[in-house]
Amino acid sequence: MPRQITSYSNETVKRLRALRDKKARRAEGLFLAEGLRILAEARDSGSLPEIIAYSPSGGIHPLAADIIAAAEAKGADIIETTPDILSKMSGKDNPQAILGAYRQPDTSLAAIDRDSSPLWIVAQALRDPGNIGTILRTGDATAAGGLILIDDSADPYSVEAVRASMGAIFTQSVAIARWDEFVTWLRSGSGQLVGTSLNTDHDYLEPTYEQPCFLLIGNESQGLPSAYEAECDLLVKMPMLGRADSLNAAVAAAVMAFQVRASWRN
Amino acid sequence: MPRQITSYSNETVKRLRALRDKKARRAEGLFLAEGLRILAEARDSGSLPEIIAYSPSGGIHPLAADIIAAAEAKGADIIETTPDILSKMSGKDNPQAILGAYRQPDTSLAAIDRDSSPLWIVAQALRDPGNIGTILRTGDATAAGGLILIDDSADPYSVEAVRASMGAIFTQSVAIARWDEFVTWLRSGSGQLVGTSLNTDHDYLEPTYEQPCFLLIGNESQGLPSAYEAECDLLVKMPMLGRADSLNAAVAAAVMAFQVRASWRN
Repeated sequence: MPRQITSYSNETVKRLRALRDKKARRAEGLFLAEGLRILAEARDSGSLPEIIAYSPSGGIHPLAADIIAAAEAKGADIIETTPDILSKMSGKDNPQAILGAYRQPDTSLAAIDRDSSPLWIVAQALRDPGNIGTILRTGDATAAGGLILIDDSADPYSVEAVRASMGAIFTQSVAIARWDEFVTWLRSGSGQLVGTSLNTDHDYLEPTYEQPCFLLIGNESQGLPSAYEAECDLLVKMPMLGRADSLNAAVAAAVMAFQVRASWRN
Repeated sequence: MPRQITSYSNETVKRLRALRDKKARRAEGLFLAEGLRILAEARDSGSLPEIIAYSPSGGIHPLAADIIAAAEAKGADIIETTPDILSKMSGKDNPQAILGAYRQPDTSLAAIDRDSSPLWIVAQALRDPGNIGTILRTGDATAAGGLILIDDSADPYSVEAVRASMGAIFTQSVAIARWDEFVTWLRSGSGQLVGTSLNTDHDYLEPTYEQPCFLLIGNESQGLPSAYEAECDLLVKMPMLGRADSLNAAVAAAVMAFQVRASWRN
């Protein structure tokens, strides 16, 4: 049975609210996902929340009822509350009617099975959680195995990243590693590391990329450090026909990921 | 000579700060751009601000001095102020050391010269100004002529859109129109209207797109209305290999824009 909570000062309300901060996410090992669409995506991908908070005002969608029942059967804490309290938890003026707190999976490289997909996205020092979520969403669309975040990066389990991922946080593997760790891991198995660069004449449309392909995306403001470029097995250039010399990081990842997939269809 | 302003209640400070709101931008016909990189892009594209505010603390970059001198020669109002006041104007904790207020260009369809580029991006009811800016940046990279915003859209002259455009707001034409206005204008000349859809078997890699190509991108949450799809001369499908059935709008625009350009290189 759900617990009824109508007090802002309730401990579970405070605990869920705290998950908007990285420190609390780290300490608890949990993260927040909001909205029936993403919770359904999670469930269909085999993830159920450990805590659910929902508002029954406006009626409970049958799919929400299913997810609540499934989570409760697994011992989740189910909280029935008000839209105002959901708003406080999610930090949004118009909160979704349901949110869940999920266990963060293992983000070590050891948990990545490179043979599970021919395509992986590797991103260096991304600062914008929206970009991380968008890249996860693109990873899902291109059936990438997942996203490997290199160096100091925004948190893929932040509310903004989870929201932008549109559920892909539950379908894509996520690893977090330092560059040297990543290179050691990469070179312990097969894989072509592909970077985009202005310092090459090799057009991105030409290669048939190798499998597994590890697409390396530079950070938003600096692009790839030259030592990282030097480690790449292949550098390719995306034509920049205008005045700018770079693309948004999530856009660059997407154009390359679709092109890698296209190269395998020839 | 610059005016020294150190008071938050100064009229010009208040006026610049107000440009963060759409209503004030409309009323004044001005918009804000921040940072030397974007102001230099603007200048190189032939745009100078009507008002400049900058902080001399930390020294004045020679490029900033050039832009200030050029704007002053054209009669711009030049304000020397403090980082705190710049922060108040831009709404950012760590403001750029310089910002400019620019005149909004004519955003009617009549101002668009379709023969100036073989590629145009048309986006319907985008809600996220960051997506608009990112699409402008992609438009620059693919030498699109510009972006036509259909129906109720976020403001391309908002601070967030201008920032995400990385200067492309000054290199890309922007028009704002209702759908029926746009269709009438489109059909008064040449042009292939291309939409992405799940309701077709036509793969996006197959066509050699016609010129000028008008790429129609649906909004973030609903995609294209069916009547808009029906108006398209060509519908193509981007493969969705995972669980999700859509991409981020700016990502979809970019993958398509690069593919349209790629089709012309065969």
